Amino acid sequence: MAILEVVDDARVRVLTLNRPEALNAFNDELYHAAGAALEEAAERADIACVVITGTGRAFSAGQDLAEMGRLSAATRTDFGDAGPGFPRFLDTLAAFGKPVIAAVNGIGVGIGMTMLLHVDLAFIASTARLRAPFVPLGVVPEAAGSLLMPVVMGNQRAALKLYTGDWITADEAVECGLALRAVEPDELMNVTMDLARRIAKMPVASLSATKRIVVEGRIDAVRAARAREDRAFTGMIGQPANMEAIAAFLEKREPDFSRL
Amino acid sequence: MAILEVVDDARVRVLTLNRPEALNAFNDELYHAAGAALEEAAERADIACVVITGTGRAFSAGQDLAEMGRLSAATRTDFGDAGPGFPRFLDTLAAFGKPVIAAVNGIGVGIGMTMLLHVDLAFIASTARLRAPFVPLGVVPEAAGSLLMPVVMGNQRAALKLYTGDWITADEAVECGLALRAVEPDELMNVTMDLARRIAKMPVASLSATKRIVVEGRIDAVRAARAREDRAFTGMIGQPANMEAIAAFLEKREPDFSRL
Amino acid sequence: MAILEVVDDARVRVLTLNRPEALNAFNDELYHAAGAALEEAAERADIACVVITGTGRAFSAGQDLAEMGRLSAATRTDFGDAGPGFPRFLDTLAAFGKPVIAAVNGIGVGIGMTMLLHVDLAFIASTARLRAPFVPLGVVPEAAGSLLMPVVMGNQRAALKLYTGDWITADEAVECGLALRAVEPDELMNVTMDLARRIAKMPVASLSATKRIVVEGRIDAVRAARAREDRAFTGMIGQPANMEAIAAFLEKREPDFSRL
Repeated sequence: MAILEVVDDARVRVLTLNRPEALNAFNDELYHAAGAALEEAAERADIACVVITGTGRAFSAGQDLAEMGRLSAATRTDFGDAGPGFPRFLDTLAAFGKPVIAAVNGIGVGIGMTMLLHVDLAFIASTARLRAPFVPLGVVPEAAGSLLMPVVMGNQRAALKLYTGDWITADEAVECGLALRAVEPDELMNVTMDLARRIAKMPVASLSATKRIVVEGRIDAVRAARAREDRAFTGMIGQPANMEAIAAFLEKREPDFSRL
Repeated sequence: MAILEVVDDARVRVLTLNRPEALNAFNDELYHAAGAALEEAAERADIACVVITGTGRAFSAGQDLAEMGRLSAATRTDFGDAGPGFPRFLDTLAAFGKPVIAAVNGIGVGIGMTMLLHVDLAFIASTARLRAPFVPLGVVPEAAGSLLMPVVMGNQRAALKLYTGDWITADEAVECGLALRAVEPDELMNVTMDLARRIAKMPVASLSATKRIVVEGRIDAVRAARAREDRAFTGMIGQPANMEAIAAFLEKREPDFSRL
Repeated sequence: MAILEVVDDARVRVLTLNRPEALNAFNDELYHAAGAALEEAAERADIACVVITGTGRAFSAGQDLAEMGRLSAATRTDFGDAGPGFPRFLDTLAAFGKPVIAAVNGIGVGIGMTMLLHVDLAFIASTARLRAPFVPLGVVPEAAGSLLMPVVMGNQRAALKLYTGDWITADEAVECGLALRAVEPDELMNVTMDLARRIAKMPVASLSATKRIVVEGRIDAVRAARAREDRAFTGMIGQPANMEAIAAFLEKREPDFSRL
């Protein structure tokens, strides 16, 4: 079965992240598959909007930490999160010229959380939760999260979640603008597809033109934030805090940053 | 009776949109009258703030769709929404150097909704509702709505209302920052005028200087959004989606965009 | 006892404004002491985050109005709010590269309120309240409040409090993003220090790099707002509205701006 399921129906393209054994963590192949599916959806006149969801109990666990461990001594160029796959997916999503709706079926961590800052709409299963664990991993936010978490969630709620790495419950996600509504897990796809189909009845030309001018209003700031984050990230990956975080993760213990 | 009622009392200028037979839809004359009344209020040292409301059961139905139908095959220059009246009113309001309070007495559609993005304060009748039907009409948002709806309402709530054209209830308007409070219809003007008179007791020099520096913080972004919207609008007015939307409206049927 | 108490414990620096007899109003000495304590905290590798609170029943009454009265006929250079102390403290806080948590123990007025726009997190005593009385004092907002009050609080809630000078209750402060949570007064420091200590367990390098890229996303806009405010302020201090406001304050009467 494909790593990314792509189904087109009634002018809605549904992308399903399909690595359930890895909690739909992104590897380079999945980033590229999702990026390519978005690129094609942008071109196709018969696709009005896109839905993104995941298979199994997770939405996406983000970047695979085992892979992060293998690569943490390397430069960011070798690191999946910043390899050619990550920017292809994220930058395509950030500039995407049609509405995107996320159906957050389970946990969203790292890029599994920050991609919600770039979709237009999201519904979240009441059992799902989100996490931006960049500081606890000894690095910095990615995907323009340093800009958009404060804008979307409010400065203080963003700071709380960024500086502690605390989980965001489904209800909190709704309160702080990361999702429109929390719904029962078995209602998630119905609710999402109902809205997607309603939007897909609108003229594609208007949806596209509207989404594009909305994106144009923020894309320069998003790109500047991405550049700042990349510079900071490069200076931190493989450094003592990041190494201790990954070692603690792999050894299933609490990290100790007190001597750093 | 004048198309715009202008009453000055205790340093408060009250503008009342007065085309109740057309649900206070804006024609070029009304845009110019409202623009001129704002321009004069800006100059007058004895006016501290401005209130905008409507006569009858509507706040403003926005641009008259019958007129839009007559003009939809023409260029935007001939189209009321972008003729000299619309930018005179909207750009004066967007840069206005004194507090403006809206008393939303009934439905607000199109510019009747987006003007709330440029006032400082609004109260809304509990029976009123708002709508930004640009996508269903086959065009794009106007009045910097593509920038300010996300900023004011939050990205996802703005996207929901933009991409569906769904109505915004009075309670939703309060939740998403389009109004301070929903009040009983027969209390609307009392509540509004109480606040207007309290503000009008403040020094006009401080009110003006404060409003001007608040405006300066966003006016460049507003103007850039207006330019983006105008470019997109010009490419969509009179095109198939817009023609079908107007035909459906005039024929009192649902539009069908499925073949476009 | 020092005008500013500085205690470092477990990688948390706690700054306590300590002029209880003046409701912790800032004079030039206190601005400089707070600025210097922040500057040192930025340099120290063993300090992960900073807490700011106040002694006694006030958080900070802001700029001392008696002093404002003495200086209002002078230029802003002579005026404490804009003397070398104010910008040293405020600009250091606005660009500070580590998380800052406010524990708002009592009233916060003027800079005692606007500094909350520059901290990352705040808890507020349920009995505390905040006020931005710039318009009633015949001047304009300071500390980038003209930019950040709308961003943090929402346009309309910011406008209401700016144009009336009305108090913001603790519950309102939470609703409008000025604080994370209102807590019982005797729980305030426990709740604040619990969070500060949790954050202080994170790697300082990640906290610093993250805070710096968050700040970089807004600092240019903050500086531009500060410059606009300073220009407007200079034109208003010592002018009739400001003189009447100060006279009324000193004479314990309501100001009368109706003839201005």
